[in-house]
Amino acid sequence: MTNNNTAPAPCVILVEPQLCENVGMAARAMKNCALKELRLVNPREDYLSAKARAASSNSEEILEQAKVYSSTSEAIGDLQYVLASTARHRDQTKLVFDASAGACEICKHINRGARCGIMFGPERTGLRNEDICLADGIINVPLNPEHCSLNLSQAVLLIGYEYYKQTIELRPGELVTNHSQIAPKEKVLLFCKHLEGKLSQFANYSDEQKREKLVINLRNIFTRSELTEQELNTLYGIVNYLGEKRD
Amino acid sequence: MTNNNTAPAPCVILVEPQLCENVGMAARAMKNCALKELRLVNPREDYLSAKARAASSNSEEILEQAKVYSSTSEAIGDLQYVLASTARHRDQTKLVFDASAGACEICKHINRGARCGIMFGPERTGLRNEDICLADGIINVPLNPEHCSLNLSQAVLLIGYEYYKQTIELRPGELVTNHSQIAPKEKVLLFCKHLEGKLSQFANYSDEQKREKLVINLRNIFTRSELTEQELNTLYGIVNYLGEKRD
Repeated sequence: MTNNNTAPAPCVILVEPQLCENVGMAARAMKNCALKELRLVNPREDYLSAKARAASSNSEEILEQAKVYSSTSEAIGDLQYVLASTARHRDQTKLVFDASAGACEICKHINRGARCGIMFGPERTGLRNEDICLADGIINVPLNPEHCSLNLSQAVLLIGYEYYKQTIELRPGELVTNHSQIAPKEKVLLFCKHLEGKLSQFANYSDEQKREKLVINLRNIFTRSELTEQELNTLYGIVNYLGEKRD
Repeated sequence: MTNNNTAPAPCVILVEPQLCENVGMAARAMKNCALKELRLVNPREDYLSAKARAASSNSEEILEQAKVYSSTSEAIGDLQYVLASTARHRDQTKLVFDASAGACEICKHINRGARCGIMFGPERTGLRNEDICLADGIINVPLNPEHCSLNLSQAVLLIGYEYYKQTIELRPGELVTNHSQIAPKEKVLLFCKHLEGKLSQFANYSDEQKREKLVINLRNIFTRSELTEQELNTLYGIVNYLGEKRD
């Protein structure tokens, strides 16, 4: 789903982050994912310190524009849709989304014009129940259950990444060429015939059945590679060179 | 796509990693994503140092079992399908997948019984052309083009995460309840009627049109919440308590 309107990206709310480096690295992860607005609830350390700035790695403007709040409810007061990032459900009756579905849900709300946010808890303990119950739902990064501990900035990165993917056209798989076109079939076949013509003395080439099989194999090899025109020219050069050597 | 056979997860090949902490953090990211086999091509620092172990955060076994090679070609020699993580295509004619499609491609190959790998370049420079040309394709994490620099362990995490998602059943969104069932419609309606019955003196309640509108609004509020049986009981208690106070 691409983002159709000009409503801003979701803001990231860090509730009581402990280490300023983590705030800096979270800012860096936000920038990786085109997220801009950072809100901090009672950060323990100075999020504008040299340490935090260094950790943000060229994302200082996110730190400089961050807003500080004294409670979670205040930090999300103007938002209309908020998801809480947490691995545990803690006995609450709550909508739970995996990271991809949660990002999709946020984009749906953004497209309807809602201001959205994603909140993350303190490094050691994660979000408290009293914070989680303020959110519309829980967003959960699916990871190896035997080792799912993520640091704060990695959680921001993975959820931010899922958000970012929702806003762009993905490229599921394409052949990128070096400015040269993929050769049309007739040129590939001409090359194969050229090569075959050089093989008159090749082992077993006089045996019609074996020759036919070889031809099929060669054509399969060169068809499978989706050769470009430039690559075909390279192969012509090589075949001719080897052919001369042989003659 | 879930992983149908017992073929092992793809191995992670770090080509000339510079800092041992990054190797440790990459091991941690691997464990997050249920990846086990780490291969190192000419690591510059000691990947079994205390620093590396600390950075691996309980993933030391991955470091201890890592294998070291003196060239990329040697490190991938026994593999049948290899993708190279890089942001740049560098003028090669190459298949390029986004991280999700690349992970899907790897799982297809694993399901056919192939041994697969994903290679990552040195922190500063990324993979060299002569390494990339050994891979079957390129895997590319889609990120904000204005700020797409990722550290090594984050690249391993994001691609590993996309691989891990391919191996599990995702939960696109579900209401998780506190051991209590979602109440059936008849119970929600009974509660609404109970509440409505308490409102005989409520403002405008004598105006039939306004009353009807209020009833519709209330029923919409309580239907939208997908209340559990336990939550309904809580609401009954509150309505009765408030009703008594009023009486």
